[in-house]
Amino acid sequence: MKPELPFSVVRAGHAELRVRDLAASRAFYEEILGFVVTEERDGQLFLRGVEERHHHSLVLTEADAPLVSHLAFRVAEEDHLDALASYFESLGCRVQFVEPGTEPGQGRALRVQDPFGFPLEFYAEMQQAECLLQKYHLHKGAGVRRLDHFNCFVSDLARCEQMWREGLGFRLTEYVETDDEPRAKKAVWLHRKGNVHDLALMEGLGPRLHHIGFWMDDVVSIIRVCDILGGAELHTHIERGPGRHGISNAFFLYLRDPDGHRIELYTSDYLTVDPDHEPIRWSARDPRRQTLWGHQTPESWWRDGSPVMDWDSEAPVALSGATDARAATYIK
Amino acid sequence: MKPELPFSVVRAGHAELRVRDLAASRAFYEEILGFVVTEERDGQLFLRGVEERHHHSLVLTEADAPLVSHLAFRVAEEDHLDALASYFESLGCRVQFVEPGTEPGQGRALRVQDPFGFPLEFYAEMQQAECLLQKYHLHKGAGVRRLDHFNCFVSDLARCEQMWREGLGFRLTEYVETDDEPRAKKAVWLHRKGNVHDLALMEGLGPRLHHIGFWMDDVVSIIRVCDILGGAELHTHIERGPGRHGISNAFFLYLRDPDGHRIELYTSDYLTVDPDHEPIRWSARDPRRQTLWGHQTPESWWRDGSPVMDWDSEAPVALSGATDARAATYIK
Amino acid sequence: MKPELPFSVVRAGHAELRVRDLAASRAFYEEILGFVVTEERDGQLFLRGVEERHHHSLVLTEADAPLVSHLAFRVAEEDHLDALASYFESLGCRVQFVEPGTEPGQGRALRVQDPFGFPLEFYAEMQQAECLLQKYHLHKGAGVRRLDHFNCFVSDLARCEQMWREGLGFRLTEYVETDDEPRAKKAVWLHRKGNVHDLALMEGLGPRLHHIGFWMDDVVSIIRVCDILGGAELHTHIERGPGRHGISNAFFLYLRDPDGHRIELYTSDYLTVDPDHEPIRWSARDPRRQTLWGHQTPESWWRDGSPVMDWDSEAPVALSGATDARAATYIK
Amino acid sequence: MKPELPFSVVRAGHAELRVRDLAASRAFYEEILGFVVTEERDGQLFLRGVEERHHHSLVLTEADAPLVSHLAFRVAEEDHLDALASYFESLGCRVQFVEPGTEPGQGRALRVQDPFGFPLEFYAEMQQAECLLQKYHLHKGAGVRRLDHFNCFVSDLARCEQMWREGLGFRLTEYVETDDEPRAKKAVWLHRKGNVHDLALMEGLGPRLHHIGFWMDDVVSIIRVCDILGGAELHTHIERGPGRHGISNAFFLYLRDPDGHRIELYTSDYLTVDPDHEPIRWSARDPRRQTLWGHQTPESWWRDGSPVMDWDSEAPVALSGATDARAATYIK
Ligand SMILES: [Ca+2]
Ligand SMILES: [Fe+2]
Ligand SMILES: [Fe+2]
Ligand SMILES: [Fe+2]
Ligand SMILES: [Fe+2]
Repeated sequence: MKPELPFSVVRAGHAELRVRDLAASRAFYEEILGFVVTEERDGQLFLRGVEERHHHSLVLTEADAPLVSHLAFRVAEEDHLDALASYFESLGCRVQFVEPGTEPGQGRALRVQDPFGFPLEFYAEMQQAECLLQKYHLHKGAGVRRLDHFNCFVSDLARCEQMWREGLGFRLTEYVETDDEPRAKKAVWLHRKGNVHDLALMEGLGPRLHHIGFWMDDVVSIIRVCDILGGAELHTHIERGPGRHGISNAFFLYLRDPDGHRIELYTSDYLTVDPDHEPIRWSARDPRRQTLWGHQTPESWWRDGSPVMDWDSEAPVALSGATDARAATYIK
Repeated sequence: MKPELPFSVVRAGHAELRVRDLAASRAFYEEILGFVVTEERDGQLFLRGVEERHHHSLVLTEADAPLVSHLAFRVAEEDHLDALASYFESLGCRVQFVEPGTEPGQGRALRVQDPFGFPLEFYAEMQQAECLLQKYHLHKGAGVRRLDHFNCFVSDLARCEQMWREGLGFRLTEYVETDDEPRAKKAVWLHRKGNVHDLALMEGLGPRLHHIGFWMDDVVSIIRVCDILGGAELHTHIERGPGRHGISNAFFLYLRDPDGHRIELYTSDYLTVDPDHEPIRWSARDPRRQTLWGHQTPESWWRDGSPVMDWDSEAPVALSGATDARAATYIK
Repeated sequence: MKPELPFSVVRAGHAELRVRDLAASRAFYEEILGFVVTEERDGQLFLRGVEERHHHSLVLTEADAPLVSHLAFRVAEEDHLDALASYFESLGCRVQFVEPGTEPGQGRALRVQDPFGFPLEFYAEMQQAECLLQKYHLHKGAGVRRLDHFNCFVSDLARCEQMWREGLGFRLTEYVETDDEPRAKKAVWLHRKGNVHDLALMEGLGPRLHHIGFWMDDVVSIIRVCDILGGAELHTHIERGPGRHGISNAFFLYLRDPDGHRIELYTSDYLTVDPDHEPIRWSARDPRRQTLWGHQTPESWWRDGSPVMDWDSEAPVALSGATDARAATYIK
Repeated sequence: MKPELPFSVVRAGHAELRVRDLAASRAFYEEILGFVVTEERDGQLFLRGVEERHHHSLVLTEADAPLVSHLAFRVAEEDHLDALASYFESLGCRVQFVEPGTEPGQGRALRVQDPFGFPLEFYAEMQQAECLLQKYHLHKGAGVRRLDHFNCFVSDLARCEQMWREGLGFRLTEYVETDDEPRAKKAVWLHRKGNVHDLALMEGLGPRLHHIGFWMDDVVSIIRVCDILGGAELHTHIERGPGRHGISNAFFLYLRDPDGHRIELYTSDYLTVDPDHEPIRWSARDPRRQTLWGHQTPESWWRDGSPVMDWDSEAPVALSGATDARAATYIK
């Protein structure tokens, strides 16, 4: 048994996205995707999926330009935040604690700009909200159930993977690797909560958010989203899919929100709680890793991502690394 | 080729139901089942399914007591109505023509009390309405697509079947029959439009409407109705199912509306346009005819039906025949 | 009421495809698509869907090169064949009658090379086979239910449409048209059996078969085919989809069989039996006609088709018309 | 944070069932449910679901009478077995260690008759087997994915719950309770792996196994099992459902295997990894706990269960407690 870490990350918790037109974003997230509004205040919406009992898994904040304000992970115990702060300080990162309620519904939180530039937040406590899972008559649109994962572009994948696995206790479930020697990983799927991932990292121009994945009930509810978008003549929000990933086995659909932030609707992956769960290797040359059905991935999916915020300056973090994730790392 | 009839019935067209509380019925049919309101006028609602292009397939009329005001069939040509009138007069029935617009949206219509007591209507013309099939973002609840069929209790099944088949040109697809000699049919499924039925007749206390069947897109949308009703704590509207019929192969759900009128949500039967399409016989002793899965049918389903209106007196038509359809005709 | 034709086409009936490797084709059609083998004889397989009660809806014939040997339509009465022969002779076509059993399971049949070069067959009688619809435990792979339609490239669309509608009694349900004056139709969907089509015609290099469409039970069974093909590493058979057509509203998947013949799996269109059913016009500039979700159609789908056989020479019929259907007729 | 236990149970691992006719059971589990045979040896079959990577989640052993030989849980580390042995010894239980391979594929294991009479097994290591999740072309019948949970009748629920929660670290997610004071729990759902349960306990005549629950991909695959059983005229294996549980929100189907052992096919519950996840209370008077749709539960479901084996004598363990679970504990 490995030496235990002095903290335990439970799962991906929530994200905050800056959007330019809160009303337009609300229409997309509430009417089309089916998020429930827990709280609304000046220039901000706090949203949750129909299964979720926490105050929010998504915050939309009106601003002049799209940006990812932060990505947050839930930890098991309130005092794990202090141990996490020590860990990030040991990496030379700026850390900051914010008081309960600084973010509505949220307890004391640790904010840190990680060594790769991502604005992370960790918290143990969040206010409860009503679970609407069985209030099927109130579900709208896609009826999104819950946050599943974050997927990020990072320029130095090897070091970043090491931080999340060795430093933060995430477990590897699948990875993409070049075939030529020396072999190099090009993307990794890492989890804490017992399915394929809470966080995926792809080598590329970073730090950027590639997408946020939300859990859906089944294949049919994802098809339904396509039909709803098509019916409303909002089909240009569909970027890729629906399809079946080779990696993760998930049935997926990628959407772009009104600001271009990418949302994945995701279902049907598998259980990974076993300690001897063996990671699956995919060759970077294998087209079935992208979809089991052999579908092409559009250029924009390889290229586009959302910049992330510097906690201090509130400006976008400068980018480094390959400008084209696919060109640098994948053979399509 | 059989001598042709001087008229051609196209399909089951619409029904009018008397209900006691129009607002309560509207909530059920519009919010839960997803009917679209084409027109509303004093004490009446004209509804259609999302696929339908005609003004209505269901009329709800507020009244003191629940009743089936009429069952209507569409014919191919306007002048078929005259030939139909002659046919019904030859049977000794009262017939009456009503002017276009007597029923909103409907052209000239023939009204007749058939020899078995059913208040029938035939019409060729009806005002067009917008088809909402592809406006998926506007679909509500079950998203009912279209009227499929009527199912009626009749006390003299043999003569009634004869009228519909020989007199009116309906084609038999399936039937239930006793095994003992002389064999006797206990229920028949008759169609004009090319699937299993536009009209089913079951021997029993009649004339009564057993149910109106509406077409659904698929199995999942029927499961969804159950969840919506369960979520809204309206589950007592569910009388039977979901399940797979042996007869018709349809996936079904039976609901009772706020007045007890029975609605079937129905999908996945089969094509019957071939002239050599052979009717399927089911033994009255075979439980798989009711559901392929062997589920029991509740007593109420065998027992209850909606009385029908006398066109002249507007009162319920008196009943005759077995008081318990199952006892008389089926071996459960 | 229009003057009646002296014959009535019931529906698209069956097709015969020449394939190079019967064992490979059998694996594809039987194991993946789930066709049932009714009869096998030297170099030929006679297949039907699980719902079908006729001896075959698809014939596979081993040969040196892929070809469409014939497309067959069922008529209502045996003596309609004579009236049809007269009609085609009036168009200057070669016609030929073949005796019952010339094609296994099939009664007397009329064979004709139509004015556009298609090898057509008409027949009224075909031997019954067991319906396996409710023998769900025997269904394999996709569990294809029944033949739905043929889709063909034709170089002179206007005249060809006229033959099928005025000459043969087919009804128009949807069409694609240019917006510029004079407007010209670029594709038409024509039916007899009461849903969107038995036959679609697209302007292009013809005569060629674009695809044969088979009816599936629902969306999920189509997704299942993709997963089965992906699992078996046969994903290169998937050419396009799954998706939702604007035209027809069908949920679809296009596959290429081992010889490149295109098969569509198709479900969820709508009822068209009403005599006043209004055809739907789609602009050739509207991308939603292809899919409601806005997906791009691959080049091969626009370009490729199967040549058809000359009844006399058994050689492929020479082609004429635009070499690129899309370039000539569509604005992608 | 609670004092930590010196062991960590990962999840429900596997069960061994005695069956009278191994060939008949194999047909049911392999062809209908879709289990994969990992190993077959004299009088025994070792089965796994299509997602599973361990040698087995179900062992079928031919014997004279049906019995549950053992229920097994996986622990995180091999040396947790010793700590578990100490715990059970502290309860006065007989414990026994068996060498790796005593059960094919399984490492060193701890066997214990728990204070309530259940033959439990704990193990950390099991041989890997190929994951067939993405080999969709090889899936049969229901395509069962993985073991989800055990559900047991126990006569002393309060003490048994205490053992599993306080002694073994299971977490409560839902429970049924009487409304009258003093309130008493009548059933509890307990988990380790992060969904609703690995183990449910119902007060009643025990120790008996009520059912083993297996995870299914979605609603449609459960409907498919009903159709397959109906098609094969094996519908009497269906005991209850399909339906939507109030408790757990799962979509379910209960089957009885050829020996009467009850199998649940189960999908669509929810994530429970949060440390502050609040258990849901259901009143024993609330019919929606059983199904959200209000369906009645058959008598047999309340009454029947499988006896369990005494590790030493290999005979059934004697029963105590209420003879009718429902009468004693539920108000239907
Ligand atoms: Ca620990
Ligand atoms: Fe936050
Ligand atoms: Fe009417
Ligand atoms: Fe033929
Ligand atoms: Fe074991």
